[in-house]
Amino acid sequence: MDRRAVVLLSGGLDSSTTLAIARSEGYECYALSFDYGQRHRRELEAARRVAEALNVRDHRIVRLDIAQFGGSALTADIEVPKGRELEEIGRGIPPTYVPARNTIFLAHALAWAEVIDAFDIFIGANCIDYSGYPDCRPEYLRAFEYMANLATKAAVEGRGRFHIRAPMLTLSKEDIVRRALELGVDLSLTWSCYDPTPEGLACGQCDSCILRRSGFEAAGVEDPIRYAKREAV
Amino acid sequence: MDRRAVVLLSGGLDSSTTLAIARSEGYECYALSFDYGQRHRRELEAARRVAEALNVRDHRIVRLDIAQFGGSALTADIEVPKGRELEEIGRGIPPTYVPARNTIFLAHALAWAEVIDAFDIFIGANCIDYSGYPDCRPEYLRAFEYMANLATKAAVEGRGRFHIRAPMLTLSKEDIVRRALELGVDLSLTWSCYDPTPEGLACGQCDSCILRRSGFEAAGVEDPIRYAKREAV
Repeated sequence: MDRRAVVLLSGGLDSSTTLAIARSEGYECYALSFDYGQRHRRELEAARRVAEALNVRDHRIVRLDIAQFGGSALTADIEVPKGRELEEIGRGIPPTYVPARNTIFLAHALAWAEVIDAFDIFIGANCIDYSGYPDCRPEYLRAFEYMANLATKAAVEGRGRFHIRAPMLTLSKEDIVRRALELGVDLSLTWSCYDPTPEGLACGQCDSCILRRSGFEAAGVEDPIRYAKREAV
Repeated sequence: MDRRAVVLLSGGLDSSTTLAIARSEGYECYALSFDYGQRHRRELEAARRVAEALNVRDHRIVRLDIAQFGGSALTADIEVPKGRELEEIGRGIPPTYVPARNTIFLAHALAWAEVIDAFDIFIGANCIDYSGYPDCRPEYLRAFEYMANLATKAAVEGRGRFHIRAPMLTLSKEDIVRRALELGVDLSLTWSCYDPTPEGLACGQCDSCILRRSGFEAAGVEDPIRYAKREAV
């Protein structure tokens, strides 16, 4: 088989598992990561290692010039919420939301996909154990897919139809941890924390750490990465 | 009035006229241009001058890292078609098509718009005297708009609904030239050519030059920019 797929890869648990799934389905994978001035740039290192471990055909890190717009705790001087209750996460959209981020990411994926004749674009979006970001919801992903097939020469000329694939969409974090382990993903390579300590440890307290830790805990598996604080979730 | 609008501005005839229209409707305009490795970077200079002449509130030039994907005569080593017949232009999609370009442009505009509370995004797309690019068609623009209102916190929380406005969409080039002049746009500041000569003159023979020249000719107006060759259109 040599169907190609572009896979958005942040280096986190969800996108790494998504890449493993694309690979297990026989796709030749082209991984795409973004350097957008995120404070957790450490994730790019994770993306590199995961891409290598999962044997992608090519891995690109695209620079985005969006931090200048501001409006997010991940790119501007706005505080990342810490120590929220698990139940609180996903109610309302937190300041870590980055305006139009998945639209910008998917637009780049679409550009690359069209050039290399890949018609499947994988994204690790999840709308169960997530931060409530609107651009992780199924209705958004469907709308992007519909738009993509009107936007592109490849689709309009009938060379193929683009599909946005989000295999994590309705899994719990627990299920994602299990799925990753079944597929042999080395989770010590992945990175989820939004706000690493100066020493490069995961903070353990941002929404992303809390969601990740709850997933490992529910799955009864030890999280192989080190946290600055090991408070109860 | 201080309704805000983000206006995509390439510095060409269509986007400059679009900016003038947004301004005439009373919007406070935030112009957005892109440096994407296009061979006709000269257009960025034009964008700067037009933005200044039309008194925008802010003008950003965002760097895009998409030339690495290739796939277009505007960003890769692929020849720009020259000397085509006017009737030929718009039948089929030429190699100057840039994969997912307007989707990437509009995604950035959406990000900025959301941060500054602008709910109108203006684009100079035209589907009459145009090169047949799929991402200039009304059905594409409508699909983007629909997606944008699912993608963003501002829309989902009900702060407003985003509108993609394309006032050039169904005008002929002749009408666009007339409209620009009515609005007092200084067309000597604009730039349309895809493939300037080493001396910085418009080639006069690429599709974009041919469409522009036909518009001026039909409107019975002299084009104030200089061309390397002045062959009959």
